[in-house]
Amino acid sequence: MAVSCLLEIEPSQSFDGFCLVKEVKQEKTKKGDPYLNITVAKKHKLVVCKLWNNGFGGRTIEELLTIFTNGAMVHLIGDASEYNGQVQMTISSFRLAEKGEVDIREFIEAAPESVESMETEIRAFIDEIKIPILHQITSELFEENKKYFMHHVAAVKMHHNFKSGLAYHTLSLLRIAKNICDQYGEAVNRSKMYAALTLHDMGKIIEMTRDYTAPEYTLFGQFLGHIQIVNQMIDRKLVAIRNDRSVSIEEVTVVYELMNIISSHHGPLSNGWGSTAEPITLEAHLCHMIDNIDAKINMISKTTVDMQEGEIQKIWGLGKIYKPPAH
Amino acid sequence: MAVSCLLEIEPSQSFDGFCLVKEVKQEKTKKGDPYLNITVAKKHKLVVCKLWNNGFGGRTIEELLTIFTNGAMVHLIGDASEYNGQVQMTISSFRLAEKGEVDIREFIEAAPESVESMETEIRAFIDEIKIPILHQITSELFEENKKYFMHHVAAVKMHHNFKSGLAYHTLSLLRIAKNICDQYGEAVNRSKMYAALTLHDMGKIIEMTRDYTAPEYTLFGQFLGHIQIVNQMIDRKLVAIRNDRSVSIEEVTVVYELMNIISSHHGPLSNGWGSTAEPITLEAHLCHMIDNIDAKINMISKTTVDMQEGEIQKIWGLGKIYKPPAH
Amino acid sequence: MAVSCLLEIEPSQSFDGFCLVKEVKQEKTKKGDPYLNITVAKKHKLVVCKLWNNGFGGRTIEELLTIFTNGAMVHLIGDASEYNGQVQMTISSFRLAEKGEVDIREFIEAAPESVESMETEIRAFIDEIKIPILHQITSELFEENKKYFMHHVAAVKMHHNFKSGLAYHTLSLLRIAKNICDQYGEAVNRSKMYAALTLHDMGKIIEMTRDYTAPEYTLFGQFLGHIQIVNQMIDRKLVAIRNDRSVSIEEVTVVYELMNIISSHHGPLSNGWGSTAEPITLEAHLCHMIDNIDAKINMISKTTVDMQEGEIQKIWGLGKIYKPPAH
Amino acid sequence: MAVSCLLEIEPSQSFDGFCLVKEVKQEKTKKGDPYLNITVAKKHKLVVCKLWNNGFGGRTIEELLTIFTNGAMVHLIGDASEYNGQVQMTISSFRLAEKGEVDIREFIEAAPESVESMETEIRAFIDEIKIPILHQITSELFEENKKYFMHHVAAVKMHHNFKSGLAYHTLSLLRIAKNICDQYGEAVNRSKMYAALTLHDMGKIIEMTRDYTAPEYTLFGQFLGHIQIVNQMIDRKLVAIRNDRSVSIEEVTVVYELMNIISSHHGPLSNGWGSTAEPITLEAHLCHMIDNIDAKINMISKTTVDMQEGEIQKIWGLGKIYKPPAH
Amino acid sequence: MAVSCLLEIEPSQSFDGFCLVKEVKQEKTKKGDPYLNITVAKKHKLVVCKLWNNGFGGRTIEELLTIFTNGAMVHLIGDASEYNGQVQMTISSFRLAEKGEVDIREFIEAAPESVESMETEIRAFIDEIKIPILHQITSELFEENKKYFMHHVAAVKMHHNFKSGLAYHTLSLLRIAKNICDQYGEAVNRSKMYAALTLHDMGKIIEMTRDYTAPEYTLFGQFLGHIQIVNQMIDRKLVAIRNDRSVSIEEVTVVYELMNIISSHHGPLSNGWGSTAEPITLEAHLCHMIDNIDAKINMISKTTVDMQEGEIQKIWGLGKIYKPPAH
Amino acid sequence: MAVSCLLEIEPSQSFDGFCLVKEVKQEKTKKGDPYLNITVAKKHKLVVCKLWNNGFGGRTIEELLTIFTNGAMVHLIGDASEYNGQVQMTISSFRLAEKGEVDIREFIEAAPESVESMETEIRAFIDEIKIPILHQITSELFEENKKYFMHHVAAVKMHHNFKSGLAYHTLSLLRIAKNICDQYGEAVNRSKMYAALTLHDMGKIIEMTRDYTAPEYTLFGQFLGHIQIVNQMIDRKLVAIRNDRSVSIEEVTVVYELMNIISSHHGPLSNGWGSTAEPITLEAHLCHMIDNIDAKINMISKTTVDMQEGEIQKIWGLGKIYKPPAH
Repeated sequence: MAVSCLLEIEPSQSFDGFCLVKEVKQEKTKKGDPYLNITVAKKHKLVVCKLWNNGFGGRTIEELLTIFTNGAMVHLIGDASEYNGQVQMTISSFRLAEKGEVDIREFIEAAPESVESMETEIRAFIDEIKIPILHQITSELFEENKKYFMHHVAAVKMHHNFKSGLAYHTLSLLRIAKNICDQYGEAVNRSKMYAALTLHDMGKIIEMTRDYTAPEYTLFGQFLGHIQIVNQMIDRKLVAIRNDRSVSIEEVTVVYELMNIISSHHGPLSNGWGSTAEPITLEAHLCHMIDNIDAKINMISKTTVDMQEGEIQKIWGLGKIYKPPAH
Repeated sequence: MAVSCLLEIEPSQSFDGFCLVKEVKQEKTKKGDPYLNITVAKKHKLVVCKLWNNGFGGRTIEELLTIFTNGAMVHLIGDASEYNGQVQMTISSFRLAEKGEVDIREFIEAAPESVESMETEIRAFIDEIKIPILHQITSELFEENKKYFMHHVAAVKMHHNFKSGLAYHTLSLLRIAKNICDQYGEAVNRSKMYAALTLHDMGKIIEMTRDYTAPEYTLFGQFLGHIQIVNQMIDRKLVAIRNDRSVSIEEVTVVYELMNIISSHHGPLSNGWGSTAEPITLEAHLCHMIDNIDAKINMISKTTVDMQEGEIQKIWGLGKIYKPPAH
Repeated sequence: MAVSCLLEIEPSQSFDGFCLVKEVKQEKTKKGDPYLNITVAKKHKLVVCKLWNNGFGGRTIEELLTIFTNGAMVHLIGDASEYNGQVQMTISSFRLAEKGEVDIREFIEAAPESVESMETEIRAFIDEIKIPILHQITSELFEENKKYFMHHVAAVKMHHNFKSGLAYHTLSLLRIAKNICDQYGEAVNRSKMYAALTLHDMGKIIEMTRDYTAPEYTLFGQFLGHIQIVNQMIDRKLVAIRNDRSVSIEEVTVVYELMNIISSHHGPLSNGWGSTAEPITLEAHLCHMIDNIDAKINMISKTTVDMQEGEIQKIWGLGKIYKPPAH
Repeated sequence: MAVSCLLEIEPSQSFDGFCLVKEVKQEKTKKGDPYLNITVAKKHKLVVCKLWNNGFGGRTIEELLTIFTNGAMVHLIGDASEYNGQVQMTISSFRLAEKGEVDIREFIEAAPESVESMETEIRAFIDEIKIPILHQITSELFEENKKYFMHHVAAVKMHHNFKSGLAYHTLSLLRIAKNICDQYGEAVNRSKMYAALTLHDMGKIIEMTRDYTAPEYTLFGQFLGHIQIVNQMIDRKLVAIRNDRSVSIEEVTVVYELMNIISSHHGPLSNGWGSTAEPITLEAHLCHMIDNIDAKINMISKTTVDMQEGEIQKIWGLGKIYKPPAH
Repeated sequence: MAVSCLLEIEPSQSFDGFCLVKEVKQEKTKKGDPYLNITVAKKHKLVVCKLWNNGFGGRTIEELLTIFTNGAMVHLIGDASEYNGQVQMTISSFRLAEKGEVDIREFIEAAPESVESMETEIRAFIDEIKIPILHQITSELFEENKKYFMHHVAAVKMHHNFKSGLAYHTLSLLRIAKNICDQYGEAVNRSKMYAALTLHDMGKIIEMTRDYTAPEYTLFGQFLGHIQIVNQMIDRKLVAIRNDRSVSIEEVTVVYELMNIISSHHGPLSNGWGSTAEPITLEAHLCHMIDNIDAKINMISKTTVDMQEGEIQKIWGLGKIYKPPAH
Repeated sequence: MAVSCLLEIEPSQSFDGFCLVKEVKQEKTKKGDPYLNITVAKKHKLVVCKLWNNGFGGRTIEELLTIFTNGAMVHLIGDASEYNGQVQMTISSFRLAEKGEVDIREFIEAAPESVESMETEIRAFIDEIKIPILHQITSELFEENKKYFMHHVAAVKMHHNFKSGLAYHTLSLLRIAKNICDQYGEAVNRSKMYAALTLHDMGKIIEMTRDYTAPEYTLFGQFLGHIQIVNQMIDRKLVAIRNDRSVSIEEVTVVYELMNIISSHHGPLSNGWGSTAEPITLEAHLCHMIDNIDAKINMISKTTVDMQEGEIQKIWGLGKIYKPPAH
């Protein structure tokens, strides 16, 4: 019997169900016959499909390309096989899903917590910022941008590249920071940590397109990078406050200190990972290290979820990772 | 009036009080006159003193060197001046402290928590290790070595180079790990984290001499390093258990996985910091990152305690660090 | 006339003879027809073969995969062509070799000297170790493990990846060391060199599977690496000796010095090649340099044997290599 | 007869003339006698002087320190000798110069061209910027900041660390750029080059204190670095323009492109020299390379001016430099 | 209607015109049918063509390979399609061009200036060399080698890999150098700059084969590299002069200084780019930096010529490059 | 009683004997009194002496500097003390040694074998070179230069910086090479190894001054380096041979191959150690590795000779080195 949920498909099974289209490429066999290479998905699972010209059903390539578009929901019938250790599917029949037939939320990968609860919790962290000008800037930037911020991905390809990944990553860092602040007491400044972590990646809403199915770097993102973009947002906010009221030199200084923490959250300049200033406070060093922890937990968990117990796989940027048996 | 507590001495003041001798060097002026360069301390404060030959009080250099020995408690009278931005003292009168005259504990830098409470807390963490063979090995190694482990320094020069620094550093890592395990749930294996962190630096009790005033690397420490030393301790324990009862292949595997986490806690081999194997589990990556966090908080806090607010200083291995005004 | 020895096959010739199966992969043409990609070998020569579905002879893929298994000896008929500068063969007929029809030893690449003579010569080197505890440990570990040690490969992919490659590599290093000891006299300690070189790669019998046709890294190998594994073997031996008789501190020290030489035989930690301690003796530095010489001679000789005179090829990790005309 | 111009002083001569005080340090002989270490200057020539306590003329150290202050003009009599290959002077008599007695401009190192002519020439370059929004931003930032910009040093220690060094360095780059634009025609965009080069180091007027005798990094400079500071100036200007009139997306884009050129003028991120974004245009690459040329010509010329023909000296960051005989 | 100029071909058009053959590879379909992969060119435009076996027109592969040879001028009829974002052509009809039918100069990429004018201009630069022995050596080497030098490519794959690319690159450097010498006056020695730049890459006429359609490294080139080769040419010239007349030590020194400038024109040894000595003069540093400027302008211009405005592409060794809209 | 041999001097002893002057520096006390800092030597032992102005014996500094010159043999009376862990001597009486009073050979450090026997052995190696043109070039260059070559140092500061160190180092490499050739048979070309090793460092006779007491780099040495210098010598020899007789292309090729081996004997270009071409033959790789072995054995032996058993010291470029007890 045919499998109807893409998450369960295995080689040599038949499939008869819905999928989300992620990528479509037009190709040719060596004999010159055209075919389509279509990547479909459900949640984190990606499957590459072939639509050979004997399966076009009389349609031209141009017609097919109006059906198979990025983000389209389609119903497919086909047979799965194995190619280079991956499941691959040959499509024998296809049609667009009708409106209301399926719920797209069951197909999109998203953060494991609700947008509402995350927003509430981030706002609670912001309320803990006791340095007024940092509180004002962080709060205003969050409220003004939350519409995009709460849904954005955190990366094009790497860790947290899913819907609301940016908010979820930000919240995870705030939680780690809370514990470190609780543990180390006055050695770490809680207000600066919360302000810097809330804002550290906010520039990504401009650095990347606002499309959580297939985000790309924008031109502005490539000109400046997300660190300079968020520093610009902070600076514009500082200018606006100064238009309203007088701002003391101590206040300006702490805002620049905030920009330094954000500027250096990719580590020292010498590693070449894109910090825009050297870290010169404990909070700046911590921000970089906490960012690393959450990123790595996410990258490794994401890979091992599909691995067998006892298996070893390579993860780009991390090397081999072993999935131990459950204990 | 003369200052009697070394922690309070400033240039151009007189001093009349007790100090602990940390280092003694015999030198000569350009004219060929002998003098002593004596470093004395109270807690974390170090002051370099000069004893010129007009202050020898009729004693020969040889006699002086029987008074000024490492670890001796002496009473000094002298005048403080400034040299290259540091306080320096010229000794005009000196004598050995008499037995019972001062309490040496007021002069030694030590962890900010009591040995007893730290021991209790570490033992509680060990009790949370749910994988029996990891619990047994960790518990036995801790109990057998706690006599040294609880008092040892964690470093010759860098972070946590104070009495019970090793236990305090170990406990700090366990506390961070607890919070991360609480936050990330099943993604992180709590038992492996607690076992690995409890043991990760235990090899230092052999790598460095058991002297918390002026520790040095031992020959064995230089032959193998503390990672291989503790792995050897774990392996000998595994062999001992196997002499008592049969040990399953799964048990051996998890012990080797523990040794991998410890082997790689200095990060990937490519950084050249002395890991003895690549990290290949999430726990191995986490152990390295948590170790870094505690080390940096300690290094930066230790430096900034004596800095002025608003000042910037260089810390070896970290670059410039700024001490912000209190907020 | 068809060629019957795989070592002599050239493009556009026919082949009719025996081969050893090294690797089998199931693939599909773009039209979806299944075929097999079979790598066969004789000694160091590897040839990739295609078995198209018109050559299956009525068998299913499943049946074929019971015939073409790693290590199987098969008789093939086929035609050689050239693909990307390599010989490639299309199989037209095939069968399993019958028992006794061919001698597998003519098909396996192995060290150029006999296991017996190598074993005798290594044992003679061990007898030259004049420091009793080093002699005892080395001799016992060699005798206990020689069953595996004498047949093991020395690498998964790189130099000495052939049967008895580990023993042959070990012996080659001992011979170079002998000459250096003869030349430099007392500057180099012969006993330590012979003990360290005999043992330096012995951990590979656990780091890699005991299969000289297609060895792989074991899980234990990935947890600890061959250096820590052999140091563990040495340490267990030391513990065993100490159970028998009292061992002096000088004896323990020289055993730890031996472990340091082995720990550092991949060079300084900073190169990131997997040493587990810094080299701190002349013997430790020498062990690394001699290891390098033998590895490079083997890698270059192995590549140039199939090159034309005057040709230049790239070798991974070494760059371009030129094969000069014979002089 | 005594030399009266510091530029001509040689070991074993007497000196009787005016100098500018650059640095004063209070020190002690090993016998404990106080003395002053005073660095005096005329133009680029620096001479270290000793004022021993037998030359204090009855004044206390405190009184002396009110005479010898940074930037003071003093009249000295003394004898020059040689110490470690450098001229050193022992002061026998000293007094403050009286008002009007000497012209301080003869003692300060400054750019070899007049501020007026440089300003005119830079403005002429700005007038060549044909992209209106780049012209407006560059022109306004130049006019608003020229009061500081035209007198500022370009570095704390390295190349162009003299009065108006920043303007002179900027102008030199513009001149090189002009020739490259003339030579390569349309391949290089002249407007972007002129705008980027005029502004590239303008952030230094905030990164360093406005003191051309002994400049230091400011706190803001250390928080953000001169690249982010000037990008902030440009962004604030863009916001101001947008408050005045509507700005097209093409205009915003070219302003961001300008910020990218400036962001990357220290080269690719991977070199760790402090670029804040990758160079992604030809102009960005050129800006970095031209900056390098002028910096190196200045560093080498500055060193070789005091070297003998045929001599070789080390320059920090460049290695050995040979001064050839004049040809 | 079919396109007749290869520079204008687009996917889905027909082609009927002449091309230059750059590379021919014999391949096989998965079914085992032979076909040819032929790369043809006009100027900088390269198009990959497929000649399937149904288009062989009855010829054997061997016959086809006598028609399609590197450098042959052929007339092709075919259809263009798109493959991986590149134009690809299927050949339906082909023949060799007849003698005189086309002018090969319209098909070869070459420097944008005439050989005659470049030769005249280079000679004018040489005439500006005022140090007699440098003038003599440079002039003689230029005149003796100009036959090859004026037509040679400057690289196998990278910048200036076109006919007379070597002369054009050399001339471009001389022009930049002239402007720098004009701007910086006596700080830079014009004679040494002109001599070094004229000769710096002359060794390439031996390092690479004298074929501007498909140059390759020669064996001698790989043994010594172009820097050692031209230094050898200079040395032989020096020996020849010394056979004619007496040469002063100052003359020999300046010739060695010239060889140092050339030896170090790939930058400091530490970058590993093939300099054969450290740069130790200003001229040596400049020569390296000017070489870089011209190389990068050429590499980037060459890539962007075929890019759309607003597009971003990766260039090997430079990273992403953005092509801005024309301003 | 006073010690008369400098090799035996210890702190707090008196000295009355002969020494060789290695270095003389004129200095001043802080009070301004002149004194001399004189380094004297016997064999490898260096002692720094102070000649205070109360010990000048009425002579002026100028007169003293005619007595204490580099290479002078002097008779000194003085008292030894300790300074920074080194023996230091205060001179109370001094005079020049009279002609014939001492044998300078007892004071100079030199190779441990006689010049005559080394010359004979090197010549025997040269006679084993079976490729005629390599034999001719090597033999002629050796015979023509042996007058300098046999006495030269091999380094300014590092390994083999003693009289005839160059010849001794060369011979040591030839001996190691012989054993490797014997062991690996035809895989290694003996003729090329012997030619390359005999010549590899011969350029040092021009790179460094011909003074084995205090050699320095020459200007020519800094312009080209010893590798390019010896390649020049080989090339001039090739030209000379070609003037005599016709030379085949095979002969030229093998001479260039020789130059490649020498060009690359500092390892791959990427390490930045000054090779002038990449190694592209087995012999080139071997030459580099053998050079390393001899250099390290010499550096380590030289340091450990003066260390205590069980001691650890740092060696520049090698890290810590441990001297084990004799076994």
